[in-house]
Order: sequence, then structure tokens, then C-alpha cells
Amino acid sequence: MNDKKAILVIGAGDATGGAIAKRFAREGYIACVTRRSAEKLEPLVADIKATGGEAHGFGNDARKEEEMVALIEKIERDIAPIEVAVFNIGANVRFGITETTARVYLKVWEMACFGGFLMGREAAKVMLPRSRGTIIFTGATASLRGREGFAAFAGAKHALRALAQSMARELGPKGIHVAHPVIDGAIATEVIRTNFPERYAMKDQGGIVNPDHIADTYWYLHTQPRDAWTHEFELRPWAETW
Amino acid sequence: MNDKKAILVIGAGDATGGAIAKRFAREGYIACVTRRSAEKLEPLVADIKATGGEAHGFGNDARKEEEMVALIEKIERDIAPIEVAVFNIGANVRFGITETTARVYLKVWEMACFGGFLMGREAAKVMLPRSRGTIIFTGATASLRGREGFAAFAGAKHALRALAQSMARELGPKGIHVAHPVIDGAIATEVIRTNFPERYAMKDQGGIVNPDHIADTYWYLHTQPRDAWTHEFELRPWAETW
Amino acid sequence: MNDKKAILVIGAGDATGGAIAKRFAREGYIACVTRRSAEKLEPLVADIKATGGEAHGFGNDARKEEEMVALIEKIERDIAPIEVAVFNIGANVRFGITETTARVYLKVWEMACFGGFLMGREAAKVMLPRSRGTIIFTGATASLRGREGFAAFAGAKHALRALAQSMARELGPKGIHVAHPVIDGAIATEVIRTNFPERYAMKDQGGIVNPDHIADTYWYLHTQPRDAWTHEFELRPWAETW
Amino acid sequence: MNDKKAILVIGAGDATGGAIAKRFAREGYIACVTRRSAEKLEPLVADIKATGGEAHGFGNDARKEEEMVALIEKIERDIAPIEVAVFNIGANVRFGITETTARVYLKVWEMACFGGFLMGREAAKVMLPRSRGTIIFTGATASLRGREGFAAFAGAKHALRALAQSMARELGPKGIHVAHPVIDGAIATEVIRTNFPERYAMKDQGGIVNPDHIADTYWYLHTQPRDAWTHEFELRPWAETW
Repeated sequence: MNDKKAILVIGAGDATGGAIAKRFAREGYIACVTRRSAEKLEPLVADIKATGGEAHGFGNDARKEEEMVALIEKIERDIAPIEVAVFNIGANVRFGITETTARVYLKVWEMACFGGFLMGREAAKVMLPRSRGTIIFTGATASLRGREGFAAFAGAKHALRALAQSMARELGPKGIHVAHPVIDGAIATEVIRTNFPERYAMKDQGGIVNPDHIADTYWYLHTQPRDAWTHEFELRPWAETW
Repeated sequence: MNDKKAILVIGAGDATGGAIAKRFAREGYIACVTRRSAEKLEPLVADIKATGGEAHGFGNDARKEEEMVALIEKIERDIAPIEVAVFNIGANVRFGITETTARVYLKVWEMACFGGFLMGREAAKVMLPRSRGTIIFTGATASLRGREGFAAFAGAKHALRALAQSMARELGPKGIHVAHPVIDGAIATEVIRTNFPERYAMKDQGGIVNPDHIADTYWYLHTQPRDAWTHEFELRPWAETW
Repeated sequence: MNDKKAILVIGAGDATGGAIAKRFAREGYIACVTRRSAEKLEPLVADIKATGGEAHGFGNDARKEEEMVALIEKIERDIAPIEVAVFNIGANVRFGITETTARVYLKVWEMACFGGFLMGREAAKVMLPRSRGTIIFTGATASLRGREGFAAFAGAKHALRALAQSMARELGPKGIHVAHPVIDGAIATEVIRTNFPERYAMKDQGGIVNPDHIADTYWYLHTQPRDAWTHEFELRPWAETW
Repeated sequence: MNDKKAILVIGAGDATGGAIAKRFAREGYIACVTRRSAEKLEPLVADIKATGGEAHGFGNDARKEEEMVALIEKIERDIAPIEVAVFNIGANVRFGITETTARVYLKVWEMACFGGFLMGREAAKVMLPRSRGTIIFTGATASLRGREGFAAFAGAKHALRALAQSMARELGPKGIHVAHPVIDGAIATEVIRTNFPERYAMKDQGGIVNPDHIADTYWYLHTQPRDAWTHEFELRPWAETW
């Protein structure tokens, strides 16, 4: 091992996670990216390599404790110390309360919160002895408000926020920066492009969040000196109503 | 069936749940109380009956969907329409993040949040056709802040708050009052009496919350006219620091 | 002086202040009510007297320190100890930021906040030696959010909320209950009846807050035992969007 | 006039305002700085000029409408368009509620809030026709919580926050970025160095906020692309308790 450093991005399937991985790779970090299917990570890994970066893709179910433990052990042992860990899995579903099945309610929590807990805890374990590192949990509007129809999603995001806040209070004084950015607006993803083309068309006017700009912010967060850390903030398109 | 009404209290094991059941029984409501062990409910049920009230105890694991569904069906069919449903299960544990096992993290969420979801959803199903009813989820300081060492508990309580808020927004305009009182202070329970006798001794000076006063507040909430409903508020001893 | 007690309501000009005065008068409190013009208070005072209560009207400019000091001294000396003090002056105006004159910005703050500070401080002075009393500042949606066009009003209401919170933390442990109810919805006043008749017509369906129900809540707040005090809560019509 | 741009810093008397001016001057902005005494600005202006920047000092009482109007007109006419406006005046005093004089309460509000309103409104007037610009109001812990003894200061900071939020909602969709950073911790100023030397000594360990790092953050805020604007966030030393 040399002085290389890794960034772990759990949930690099959508535009945001991929953009973050590329942004840090550009700064010399080894991008370790995961999503359910390793195969689908290939374009991202290839993309990073094509621009001179180093990247590794891992098929991973973030809800499985043993998988998360093994993943982080493997990266630390075989690749590089994890300097930055980003949890970026969402599970945005909308159902009226009586239509919300127990299965959906549990699954949304497992994906959008429990996986974050597993990543956060395992990242803390390897970062604590080094007294350094950055752990970021991606939040959403639902992290702060429980809107009609979002009992499951808002529940998971509220719980993830509580995790981030509790970890920040515990780990900050031990040198680890825990942050919870709140993306308050649609992100320019393929899902939006396909299902809300009118919304996506606002991209050129800055009416929808560009994943590359989220990535820039995460990089900025990571580089903040420790006398001036930010824990929570929102990113919102200029014309968004709030 | 006549014009009788039932109150369901999930988690009537501690001082608070029992006090709520007694308070509503005094107003003529049939108290349907649950905790894990039906046997342990006997004193409470006997107590209510001794003062002329009607009460039924049910052994119930709030985390089990089929049990919750069957319980509410049974009450509605055999006892009386559920006019009020109160979720009162906590699971206050404290662990540093690296000492928080996946089992604890899941279990705390299942007890303090998932059970609330099941009760809330099933209560909504029977109340919606009647366009009336009150659903109350008991909150705590951890519902609003993620303190060091409380990642699991605060996570569950934050998620329960999101549930309450989402349900309030959806069900309010349909005539159902959903509320989320936040108890911000120690409650005068047996646990406190045993483990924190000095704290408990403050009871006479009002330095620790009397469960009967929580119960009075829940009754007040239930009787609010619908043009002036309260969704969230705190109950806090006068001398509490916050 | 006997064991009589007074309630002071600053801003009894609208429906809410008057309803509060009547509610406490019904409970035996001597209602001391103010508004700019003493003359306009006559119907309220007569109304309370007609139902067997005691009431005194005072012309008062809440923004004038010497007037507030003199008023409270006079009530304490000539009428009865002030057990409850309610600040109920609003100043809801809407202007875009560039249309907000310095005069308006200052005046809204003076009316909706500075007057509250003067009442709160003077009430605290007379209550502290008695280690008892209730001080209530009426809040609004603008106490919590700064909406477009409400820089002046939200500024004053935010500042009033900070006052209430700071006083609650300081005076609670000294036996004085400070509360900040937030009325989140239109109140059934003459202004609404005249200008928004459609909104007012929702009164029968509970779609607009009945001042009598606000008054009931203030009475409830005042009677809370000190181990279970509420500082902040909202009152909102069932069908209100939030 | 050419393509030069100005930054206006109201309250460049302390470490923070000066650091912000220097940071933007380094990026080519003409620093227009104010404090009560123009004379005391001379070292800052000289400092900026010595490093090749352009700076202008103005004696200014931010509470005086005509002075604020004249200042902004003068800068726009004689120096350069104001691209960034920063309000950085605090007035942190601590008094128990009964010791808070009306004069102090008013003065704290005038300095820490009313001056912000005047700057914000006048900046908006010149920025709106250009559909661009950044307006930043410096917040503090007291912007979010009303602690015991801080009725005056928290009132002013809460009101300033409401102003920032209201302006952000109105002006964001018109191309102007309004932000409200919250500094949650002591700042390394001369006041702290003199009065709390132990606290100041934590500077090397990052236990107290370095004004240069606040300045870096303000620069970062200003350069955010408009699809990913931040309105509110905190800056806090790593070891700070919150």
C-alpha cells in the first residue's frame, strides 16, 4: 500500500453516484463503486479509466450486513484506505397510507436507511483509528418533511438524517466529518429524462439539478478544513418553489 | 353493537400507556390495551374494571403484520369501533455507532417505528369510512434530534415522526386527527424509580413527567374541535433544560 | 386586594383577543384588555360584564415603553395580580422586498414584536417574585417560515418566537410558563368575513379557526401542571394544506 | 464603466468581514467595505491594495436608510456594479429578560437586522434589472435557537433569517442567489483573543473558526451554479458540541 486513497460510493447506479465517483477520481482518488448489478457498473468504471483514473466496480446488496463488511474489508486490504464514503441509495415511492404494504415499507427503509447504517458504521470502524475521513449521506426534501403519500420514503430519509446527525455528533470530535446534503429538487437523471421530459428540458436553464454539480459540492465538503465543517445544507435549483 | 367506542393503546406496558387507557376509560371508552405479554396486562385491566370501566387486554407483538390486522379486526367486530388509536412503544437504547449491532438497529426500528406504521395503517383503514377518529404516536426528544449514541433510537423516532406527519397531511382533510406529542423529559415510570431514584424524587416538585398528565393531554387532543387541531407539541417539566 | 387574579390581553381588538378575555373571565379572571382605542373596547367590556364577569378596557399603544410599564403597574396596584399575560398583536402585511419601505418594516416589528417584548418583560417582573404565572405570545405560520412577500411580517414573528423561546428557557425553571401557540390558518374574524367571504363560509365546516377554540386552548395551556408544560404547538383547521 | 464587479461588505470591522473582502479582492472583485468609522478601515483597504487588489472604505451607519441608499448608489455609479453584497453586522449581547432595556432591545435589532434589511433591499434593487447577483446574510447559532439571556440577539438574528428566507424565495426565481450561512462556534477574532485566550489557543487545532475559511465558503457560495444553490448551512468547528 502507498499513499493512495479510496472513495466508496454505495449506490453508483444513478447519475449522482457516478458523477461523484468521477469527480473524486479526477482528484486522484480510487473510485470504488457499487450497485446491485456489477455488470451495470462497467460503463462507469470504463469511463473513469478512460480518463486516466482508477476505478473498481462491486456488485453489492447494501442491505446485507455481511456483504457490506466484506466489501469494506476488501477495499481496505486490497485497494486503499477509504478516505471518503458516500451513501447514495434512494427508494422514492409514493403510496397513500392504506395502500402502503408492509413489504414496501420495510424494503424502502432497508434500502434508503439500513444500508446507510451499515456503510456508516463500517466506514467509521476503519476511519476512527486514522482520526480522519469523510462520510456523506445523501438526503432529500423528504428528509425534512413528511408529505402526503410519502410515509415510507420520508420515514427512511428521516431515519437516515438522524443517523447522520448522531454520527456527526459522535465522530466529529474524533476527526471524522459526517455530512448530510439535502437535494431539494429533481436531479437530471435518465429516469427524469424518460418520464418527465418537460422537467428534464429545464436542465439548460438550471431548473433541474446537474449531478456534476452535486459532485462538486461533495468534493468541496470533503476539502473543508476542520474548523469550518458543514453538516447539513440544501442544494436547490434557483427557480424551485420551497 | 351500540354507540360504544373503543380506544386502542399499543404498548400499555409502561406507565404512560396504562394512564392513557385509564383516562379514556373514565370517559366511557372501552380500553383495548396490548403488550407483549397478555398476562402482565391483568392488573391494568382489573384496575379499569374496578373503577367501573370496560377493558380488554391483548398479548400482541406490534411488529407482526398479521397480528396487528387480526387485533384491529377483532376489536371492530367484537367490541366497538376504534375511535382512538395510540402507539406508545419505545425502545430507548444507547450505543456508540461502532457498538450498534445490525440486530439492535433493526429491532429498535421494528419496535418503535414499524409497529407504529402497522397500527396507523390499520387504524386508518377502519376510520376512513367513518370520516372520524384520532391517531396518536408518542414522540420523544429523539424524534427531533439525533444525539450522540442514539443513532438507532433517534432513527426509529424520526421515522415515526415522518409517518405521523405524512398521515396527518393525508388523513386530516378526510376527518382523521393524527397527532405527535413529544415527551421531552423523563417520565415517572418504574424504570426511572428503580434506576434513577434521585430523578424520580423530583416527581413531587414536577421535575419529571407524571403519566397521568400525559393522559390528560391525549384526552384534550382527542376532544379538540376540527377547526383547531394540533399535530405536534412537546410536554416538558418546568425545570427541564432544553 | 383579595385572591382575585387578572389576565392581561394586549391586542384585544380582533376576534382572538376578545375571545381569550371572555374565556378567562368565565373562569373568574378579571379581564384587562387593551387596544389602541379604549372606546372600541367598550362592547367587549360590556359583553363580559353582562355575563357576570369583571373587565377593564385600556387604550394603550403597546410600542410605548412608558405606557406598558404604567399599565402593568396600574393593574397590579389597583385591580389584581396579573396571573396571565397574552400578547396578541399582529401586523400581517405583504409586500415584495423592493416595495417594503423602511417605515413599514420598522412599524411591523414595533407592533408585532417590540410590544411583545415590553409586555413580556414587564409581566416577568411582576410574576417572578410570585414564582408563578403564564405568558403567551400568539404566533403564526410566519413565525416558522419566511414566505415570499413577508420579509417584514415574518421577521417580526420570527423575532417574537425567539423572545418566547428565550424567555421560556429562562423563566420556566423559575415557575413561569411561557408559551408560543402557532395559528396556522385563517381565523374567523370580521376582516376575513368582509374580504374573504368564501373562506369565512368554511367556518361551519371547521375550515377556518374559530377564535373561541383558540381561547379554549389558551385556557388549557394555562391549566397545564408544571411537570407537563407545552411551549410551542400549532392550531390548524383539519382541511388546511401544510 | 468596464467589466469590473464590486463586492459590498457591510460590517467589515471584525475579522470575518475583512477576510471576505480580501478573498473576493483576490479574485478580482473591487472590495467596498464599510464600518462605522472609515478611519478604522484604512488598514484593511491598505492590505488589499498592497496585494494588488482594489478597495474602498466607507464610514457608514447601516441603520440609516438614507446612508445605505446613498452608499449603494455611489458604488454603482462611481465604482462598479455590485455583484455580491454581504451583511455581517452582529450585536451579541447577553442579558436576563428583566435586565434587557428597551434601548438595548431596539439597538440590537437595528444593528443586526434592520441594517440587513436596508442592505438587502437596496442590493435587490440594483441586481434585479441585471437578473444576477449574490446576497449573503451572516447568521449565528442564535438565528436558530433562542437561548436563555439572548432574547434581544436571538430576536434580531431570527428576524434576519426570516428576511433571508423570504428574499431567497422571491429573488431566487429572478436569478439572485440569497444565502444564510450560520456560524455555529466562536470565530477567531481579536475580541476572542483578548477575552477568551484559552478558546483562541484552540485555533491551531481547528477548535475555533478561522475567518479565512468563512471567506472561502462565501466565495464558494457565490460560484455555485444556479441549478444547485445552497440557501442555508452551518459552519462549525469539528470538536464543537451541538
